[in-house]
Amino acid sequence: MPGMSDYEPASPPAPPPRCRRFGQVLRLRQEQIEEYVRQHAKVWPEVLAALRRVHVRNYSIFLLGDLLFGYFEYTGEDFAADMARLAADAKTREWWAVMEPMQIPLPERAPGEWWATMREVFHMD
Amino acid sequence: MPGMSDYEPASPPAPPPRCRRFGQVLRLRQEQIEEYVRQHAKVWPEVLAALRRVHVRNYSIFLLGDLLFGYFEYTGEDFAADMARLAADAKTREWWAVMEPMQIPLPERAPGEWWATMREVFHMD
Repeated sequence: MPGMSDYEPASPPAPPPRCRRFGQVLRLRQEQIEEYVRQHAKVWPEVLAALRRVHVRNYSIFLLGDLLFGYFEYTGEDFAADMARLAADAKTREWWAVMEPMQIPLPERAPGEWWATMREVFHMD
Repeated sequence: MPGMSDYEPASPPAPPPRCRRFGQVLRLRQEQIEEYVRQHAKVWPEVLAALRRVHVRNYSIFLLGDLLFGYFEYTGEDFAADMARLAADAKTREWWAVMEPMQIPLPERAPGEWWATMREVFHMD
């Protein structure tokens, strides 16, 4: 409605932080499963700090057989930019270089993905 | 230490609500994937209410190909009892009777499971 914005307060309250939920899947090489678990019991603090800087929180990785499932929540405003920032972090790249030889990406993954992003088909708060 | 409990206050403050995170995996029959997605866009309110009554929250189901991944948080005190209560809920049983023919449980699941519970190998708050 024309003119309606005149009645809005100059500084509207900030919106609540957005939260996008991500589910991702990946496989492990059978002979590397134990080593992957061991490494993840003591993830480098710099890797955790980098994840927090790019607005990732409540991040869990689950394992069954050789199947890995990752769940995390993203509270930032620009996921692509944040993921590019993460991929440029030296310590994160070093960590990935240790992890990737243990892992087998799924053929269904999108171009450019390592972990294959799944589609959320249900959510209940 | 003997006698130590004498020094505890009669009514200690309640502990913060516990939260256990669950990751679970299941497959869908190829020809039922679309129907499963359709049903999950309009889950019966009684089914959601029953989940909330047994202290399930932040529940998402993700799909890639025929692979389903479920993530939820449990804030109750007795998971086995709450799940037994859920399994006794008439509307939940009715919902499951519609869902189960669409699904293929994983051979790796534990006895008595339908969704196979995964092991959390990493978590960052």
